Amino acid sequence: MVNRSLPSFLCGISLTLCTLSLSGFVFAEEKGSLPIMPAPAHVVVGEGEFFIDGSFGVATKGYDEPRLARARRRFLDILSKETGIPFKHGAIASQAHFIIQTIGPSAAVQQLDEDESYNLVISTNDVALKAANPLGVLRGLQTFLQLVRINERGFSVPVVTVDDAPRFPWRGLLIDSGHRFVPTPVVKRNLDGMEAVKLNVFHWRFADDEGFHIESKKFPLLQEKASGGLYYSQEEVREIVGYARDRGIRVVPEFDMPCHTKSWFQGYPELAGGKNPRQSSAMDPTRESTYKFLSGFIREMAALFPDSYLHTGGDECDAKEWETNPQIQDYMRKNSIKDGAALQGRFTARIEKIVASHKKIMEGWDEVLQANTPKDVVIQSWRGPSSLAEAARNGYRSVLSSGYYIDLNQSAKEHYLVDPLGEGAAALTPEQKKFVLGAEATMWTDIVSADNMDNRIWPRTAAIAERLWSPEQIKDIGWMYQRLAIVSQKLGYYGLRHRLITEEMLERMSGDPDPVALRVLADVVQPPKGYQRQELRTDFTALNHLDDAVPPESDTAREFNAIAQRISSGTATPQDWQQARAWLVLWRDNDAKLQSLLKRSYLIQDLAPVSTNLRRVAEIGLQALDDLHENRVVSAELRDTNITFLKSAVEPHAVLLLMPASSVELLVNATKTQ
Amino acid sequence: MVNRSLPSFLCGISLTLCTLSLSGFVFAEEKGSLPIMPAPAHVVVGEGEFFIDGSFGVATKGYDEPRLARARRRFLDILSKETGIPFKHGAIASQAHFIIQTIGPSAAVQQLDEDESYNLVISTNDVALKAANPLGVLRGLQTFLQLVRINERGFSVPVVTVDDAPRFPWRGLLIDSGHRFVPTPVVKRNLDGMEAVKLNVFHWRFADDEGFHIESKKFPLLQEKASGGLYYSQEEVREIVGYARDRGIRVVPEFDMPCHTKSWFQGYPELAGGKNPRQSSAMDPTRESTYKFLSGFIREMAALFPDSYLHTGGDECDAKEWETNPQIQDYMRKNSIKDGAALQGRFTARIEKIVASHKKIMEGWDEVLQANTPKDVVIQSWRGPSSLAEAARNGYRSVLSSGYYIDLNQSAKEHYLVDPLGEGAAALTPEQKKFVLGAEATMWTDIVSADNMDNRIWPRTAAIAERLWSPEQIKDIGWMYQRLAIVSQKLGYYGLRHRLITEEMLERMSGDPDPVALRVLADVVQPPKGYQRQELRTDFTALNHLDDAVPPESDTAREFNAIAQRISSGTATPQDWQQARAWLVLWRDNDAKLQSLLKRSYLIQDLAPVSTNLRRVAEIGLQALDDLHENRVVSAELRDTNITFLKSAVEPHAVLLLMPASSVELLVNATKTQ
Repeated sequence: MVNRSLPSFLCGISLTLCTLSLSGFVFAEEKGSLPIMPAPAHVVVGEGEFFIDGSFGVATKGYDEPRLARARRRFLDILSKETGIPFKHGAIASQAHFIIQTIGPSAAVQQLDEDESYNLVISTNDVALKAANPLGVLRGLQTFLQLVRINERGFSVPVVTVDDAPRFPWRGLLIDSGHRFVPTPVVKRNLDGMEAVKLNVFHWRFADDEGFHIESKKFPLLQEKASGGLYYSQEEVREIVGYARDRGIRVVPEFDMPCHTKSWFQGYPELAGGKNPRQSSAMDPTRESTYKFLSGFIREMAALFPDSYLHTGGDECDAKEWETNPQIQDYMRKNSIKDGAALQGRFTARIEKIVASHKKIMEGWDEVLQANTPKDVVIQSWRGPSSLAEAARNGYRSVLSSGYYIDLNQSAKEHYLVDPLGEGAAALTPEQKKFVLGAEATMWTDIVSADNMDNRIWPRTAAIAERLWSPEQIKDIGWMYQRLAIVSQKLGYYGLRHRLITEEMLERMSGDPDPVALRVLADVVQPPKGYQRQELRTDFTALNHLDDAVPPESDTAREFNAIAQRISSGTATPQDWQQARAWLVLWRDNDAKLQSLLKRSYLIQDLAPVSTNLRRVAEIGLQALDDLHENRVVSAELRDTNITFLKSAVEPHAVLLLMPASSVELLVNATKTQ
Repeated sequence: MVNRSLPSFLCGISLTLCTLSLSGFVFAEEKGSLPIMPAPAHVVVGEGEFFIDGSFGVATKGYDEPRLARARRRFLDILSKETGIPFKHGAIASQAHFIIQTIGPSAAVQQLDEDESYNLVISTNDVALKAANPLGVLRGLQTFLQLVRINERGFSVPVVTVDDAPRFPWRGLLIDSGHRFVPTPVVKRNLDGMEAVKLNVFHWRFADDEGFHIESKKFPLLQEKASGGLYYSQEEVREIVGYARDRGIRVVPEFDMPCHTKSWFQGYPELAGGKNPRQSSAMDPTRESTYKFLSGFIREMAALFPDSYLHTGGDECDAKEWETNPQIQDYMRKNSIKDGAALQGRFTARIEKIVASHKKIMEGWDEVLQANTPKDVVIQSWRGPSSLAEAARNGYRSVLSSGYYIDLNQSAKEHYLVDPLGEGAAALTPEQKKFVLGAEATMWTDIVSADNMDNRIWPRTAAIAERLWSPEQIKDIGWMYQRLAIVSQKLGYYGLRHRLITEEMLERMSGDPDPVALRVLADVVQPPKGYQRQELRTDFTALNHLDDAVPPESDTAREFNAIAQRISSGTATPQDWQQARAWLVLWRDNDAKLQSLLKRSYLIQDLAPVSTNLRRVAEIGLQALDDLHENRVVSAELRDTNITFLKSAVEPHAVLLLMPASSVELLVNATKTQ
């Protein structure tokens, strides 16, 4: 009675929504702007298309290796998922329509500056992909997959020539398995997503105050006492590292020290710098035994991770712990160390030597940069572009993360417009700019878990990936959002769950297999940006509230806002008016349907005022539309009352922002008053 | 522009749909009919409820084993998925609210007649689950999970006492990895689903004419020449067998012989009974070398699969191959074998001896039953209840599959009303009835693949599972559908994809990330039942058409039909009228929206007339509603024209049945004529 395999929430107003969708698609094709994301360096679009049917096969010329064979199989599997056509593996070159030509191998361990360029030529009869090494092949295969579409004659790709290479060599995603454990299937599918958008560094963080989630054979109490049984075995780590290599992705492990290390002390309290070891979160940098331990630990991890870089964290040390420890104070006095930062500087220098002794290059957060830091240390900037520019000016290579904190619920546009060579770095000399290696999106798990992680990472990270791969001047926001939507759908074929999570969580929190009215509300709210969410909610143990469920960015609200802007500026089309009215009617009428559902579940009870606010926002919006349409003069008093309400409605309620309120404010502001 | 994480197809008419859904839920609770499926043998519902919060833990008393520890972990993982609450593993008994008490172990290899009973007592303060062995514990844990719901105070289960045990000891699901390979993740998640509905036999079929998909180390050309590289390694098989055992599921392997064996001959043509070995599909049962080969093969497989039963197929032998082989004809004459059936009888007797020599009991399809078949052979009936009754009357144990062919797109109701002890078997004596062990749902993959398999198996197989577990007299169809909907949703927490597949395939075939109008059509069409689909479509290589995508049973069409019946019989409520009109308006207006989308994709172009038919059906339905409402007299001529059209519309077009047509016919027939 209650479930249906197909959604039952089918609608009377869908014509306009549907038309909008279609026009988006057609537009992309008409402009000749192919839905490749990241956009390639050079594209020439030709006439005609290459069709993909059951006879399609891939063969190889020149250099080959098992990794390339696996890449071809993966390519065909994704293509099968997208088309529903089973393809034969292992075609022979004389029969295949798609020939891959690889000149030679890439490095045994993927290096920072390896060639990732490729040349893809699609004609109506065949496809040729050429690259210097397997990395370029991997990138080119993804470009091909993004070009696949269905039309009235079959599945096809357009005739096109692509010459492509990345702008930055370091294009990363950090997944924080420290705050919360992230199961390996979740890691793997996000590596698949990274491959799809040509990211090449997986920055994997294993420990934080909250937990230690990787197996140390040398110091097993690390995981035994601080993982709750949830940790990566070394065998699993090796499997993930191999999985990443198959996808042209380096794995840079991070072991944050000397702070954020409470979890280390559960098994090894002697490392702690505070008085109560198990409550301490900073290591004791004054004892030789600390360095002996870390030397052994880093040796073990340096052997486990083949990458040339090893990240030792170094962020956010609170000197207070050291200042309240008499022994440490004593040490500092004796050695004339003036403050916590200087003490950390000494620690960093020691750690750097240990890392270097294993032929690894140290990477660290902003704070590791000191006057005497060795020049090959890579600085990851979380504080902002000025610290990145500062590092480059001082001859340090750096990676930007400030501006790419995808846990903070910013829009794709906001991330997209951040450029590693923008702001402070824009003033760098060309030589200095070369020190800026790239950037990393950071998926912190303070208040995100493996359950909803996909919906925080995707699709927005594809926009960041474009910033790091594509030419600097590509920054048209509308075009970005068009392609982001297509990439988002395609990522589903890679197994990413970002498009499924919200619906699953809405069902869960409502207990209703088809929570129609809750969906309407969820479609136009967003979690607060930045750290405001943490201020509004205290308990993030169970991530099962609406602010956990909805995507960081409401597409509907963004589209409604664009329409409201056109209406208020007098540039709207009749279709805009129709669409705006349809949405506002939907929102106005939703409250009456939703309230009874909200009463039934403790997880959504607090949404009652948000739903009522949406109704009121919509009522004001509909009135404003009428006033604008009829060119009516409105009472200034009423308008002020409405604007006061709209401004209050856009503030967080139940840890959610009601996005249409500010768009309706645009409409109200556009009406005429006495 | 085009994608949104939340569905945008939100509607003006959703109030009625939504209200319908809610009323279904409330009804189930009010009746005191708990959403357990299969319904337990005995239930006593009490007052109050037990709440599940972050402090919830499970502990164990009495016998324990690693399998039970894994079961507890799995239980908590599913509960976390359903609630979003992370639970701590490994609670201690003094603190846990849920105590499991197991008396002793079950058999080292799960046996046919093992005790699966359990006793589950839920009070407002705690939960106690008791069972004789781990199998009963597994069953009881699933009952608990089905009771979990959300309400205004939290997640909870009702106070209840359940005493439960199955009606039949053999409750199976066949997955056919012969026609098409089924990847291990798909097998695993379907084993999870089997556990959820208390099925206990996984009948795993590995080969058919189309392919041979399991590794033989003794005869490696079997998989090397006939699997296209897609086969289960023996290590994978062992992993699946262990995975099944963890879930209280036996694995009965099937190696169908002597027919449906074309794939065997690709590597070993000497086994073939036809003139052209590689085109032959029957073994040569006259050569000693055949038996020598099979003896070696069965030895290898008997060692790989621990279950006491081994299925050797035996179905659908076409004697023509043997009749056109002079050597075989010669042999038959010399040995006075009158026909192919007799020749197969000899073959079966030989194979039975080989199977028995490995201390296994042979199982076979109907055809293996001959006059001299040993009495311990188990007969699986695919021909129908009469062959099952016949076997039982002759003292053979049997398993019913006729009536449970879930590849044939029948409704849950149709399967549900089939009883292994119904029809022919109803006349058996109580002693004879004991020979009927149970039944198996059969997921044949002739025209189903791993991609859409979940949506063919679930949720309908839960209804079959109830028939096999629950008391015979439980057969209320309405109640079954209510619970089926809830189980269907819960199966999502086990990772089953049946509720996702249709939407994914609609996106794929339309190239639209939000194909609103296509969804409306898809929601009310069904693939033809039985073998008609194979007659209408010739190429099932790529399963990417709408008849592959939609579920076998349209819930919307069934609900609409129930309303149409009430309207035509004069028992409809005002809400029924409102709902019928809302649906008919939706369908009428959909065609104008859908046609342009259909033109854009080759996979859906042929749906144009189906969409137009839906519009016309809806127009006739709306007219009939008006006529009935106004009590109008209708022209007999017009009515006949309409009925002629409706009868034609219900016939397959584009390999699809337009389900509402027959319901509208009910409405038209209820109108008054001159």
